[in-house]
Amino acid sequence: MSQVRVHNFSISLDGFGTGEGQALETPFGHAGERLHEWLIGTQFFHAGDQLAGGTLGADNAFAAQHNPGIGAEIMGAGKFGPPGWQDDPDWKGWWGPNPPYHTPTFVLTHRPRPSIEMEGGTTFHFLDATPTETLAQVREVIGDADIRIGGGATVVRDFLAEGLVDYMHVAVVPIVLGRGVRLWDGLESLEDTYNIEPVTTSSGTTHLTFTKKR
Amino acid sequence: MSQVRVHNFSISLDGFGTGEGQALETPFGHAGERLHEWLIGTQFFHAGDQLAGGTLGADNAFAAQHNPGIGAEIMGAGKFGPPGWQDDPDWKGWWGPNPPYHTPTFVLTHRPRPSIEMEGGTTFHFLDATPTETLAQVREVIGDADIRIGGGATVVRDFLAEGLVDYMHVAVVPIVLGRGVRLWDGLESLEDTYNIEPVTTSSGTTHLTFTKKR
Ligand SMILES: NC(=O)c1ccc[n+]([C@@H]2O[C@H](COP(=O)([O-])OP(=O)(O)OC[C@H]3O[C@@H](n4cnc5c(N)ncnc54)[C@H](OP(=O)(O)O)[C@@H]3O)[C@@H](O)[C@H]2O)c1
Ligand SMILES: NC(=O)c1ccc[n+]([C@@H]2O[C@H](COP(=O)([O-])OP(=O)(O)OC[C@H]3O[C@@H](n4cnc5c(N)ncnc54)[C@H](OP(=O)(O)O)[C@@H]3O)[C@@H](O)[C@H]2O)c1
Repeated sequence: MSQVRVHNFSISLDGFGTGEGQALETPFGHAGERLHEWLIGTQFFHAGDQLAGGTLGADNAFAAQHNPGIGAEIMGAGKFGPPGWQDDPDWKGWWGPNPPYHTPTFVLTHRPRPSIEMEGGTTFHFLDATPTETLAQVREVIGDADIRIGGGATVVRDFLAEGLVDYMHVAVVPIVLGRGVRLWDGLESLEDTYNIEPVTTSSGTTHLTFTKKR
Repeated sequence: MSQVRVHNFSISLDGFGTGEGQALETPFGHAGERLHEWLIGTQFFHAGDQLAGGTLGADNAFAAQHNPGIGAEIMGAGKFGPPGWQDDPDWKGWWGPNPPYHTPTFVLTHRPRPSIEMEGGTTFHFLDATPTETLAQVREVIGDADIRIGGGATVVRDFLAEGLVDYMHVAVVPIVLGRGVRLWDGLESLEDTYNIEPVTTSSGTTHLTFTKKR
């Protein structure tokens, strides 16, 4: 059976996956790019841009697990666009004509719209469905490949709370955001169902892997 | 000038320094001993009990910084006893006749009582004062030695919020408690005033050191 995986999900020490005040100019609110500096530095992040370079150390090893084996991404309405994107019929995501997904990408929203085919293999589908229903529908489309839960925090938390995530990689960044959307709420005793292994890299990032117990 | 230090302060991934339901039988509420297993395993924790042994690795290196240079501890009413201890005139703390402090120990409480001299150099003093006033009073008693803020989360947070802590060691344990008292609340942008360095040890504990920027 295909695995459900979370990768490169970045939070602050106090557990926020995004800051307060998400808007067109500030996709992560007051967090800015601080949650993702560890990722922006890696070669993985610059794939396709040979001149840009990037590190090949431990941060890159974690980052590069993002794509292999993945046949689809599921993301929340809050990741797809700024608050109110549903009122803009022309909104096609943050990522330009060739988004970095290159697979069918399912956007959970209470206001679904027709699918949008982008360049490079990404097609956005819009779904109003529970996490379990969503996985069933995605598996009908993609078959046996793995499914990535791409965030934001609300969607990752919902899939975790229903016990639907097989593997999760969280990157903890040493900043205190104070406000935003929390990842850990409602997930008491997650350690009962996952083996949790933390490791800190030289960028000061603590990578946590969650592997489901059998 | 004497330094104000926090040591061995243990929190869950979601930032709780104690669980819900603190009581005489459950000093850490539903957290039990899980926040402190890393510490209980160290030789530092078994000091004085030669037979007990204990590890001498990285966890012990962090743990053993607890006492050297310290002339006093400041703790909250919630660390000194279970809810309601103020109504028991015979309550002398959790630690028996010879508490592990061996210095003057100042308990912040809105219901102060006369000082209690214990064995082994610990004397409990009870204070109703702001963090700044408290430090001034403690320095009058102990002079130039360093002062440890012993917890719980409420008291550590209050001293941090007023910018009074010079050094802090926090141990993050890979469990999700879900409820209790949070350390990080109200401490947005702590990284602006501290250099924060995380390192993970083989016990799965991530030790964070906070060193005040100059
Ligand atoms: N830290 C990271 O690594 C990371 C990763 C990805 C994204 N982000 C950031 O996280 C933020 C978004 O996170 P978020 O937690 O605010 O939002 P989110 O998880 O992206 O989306 C939540 C929203 O999706 C819709 N939705 C979720 N489940 C649904 C369901 N079962 N059925 C129908 N609709 C559903 C709802 O929106 P409606 O009710 O409006 O339809 C809900 O409010 C953005 O700032 C993004 O940039 C961070
Ligand atoms: N995780 C760790 O490493 C660690 C370390 C130590 C303790 N703990 C645990 O943490 C828990 C206690 O933490 P907590 O956050 O609940 O409480 P706490 O920080 O120990 O104490 C807070 C209480 O102290 C009194 N207080 C604080 N500041 C004061 C001031 N300026 N003036 C007068 N009174 C003041 C108030 O009590 P009143 O209003 O009742 O007087 C306040 O409610 C216990 O379960 C303990 O076992 C954990």
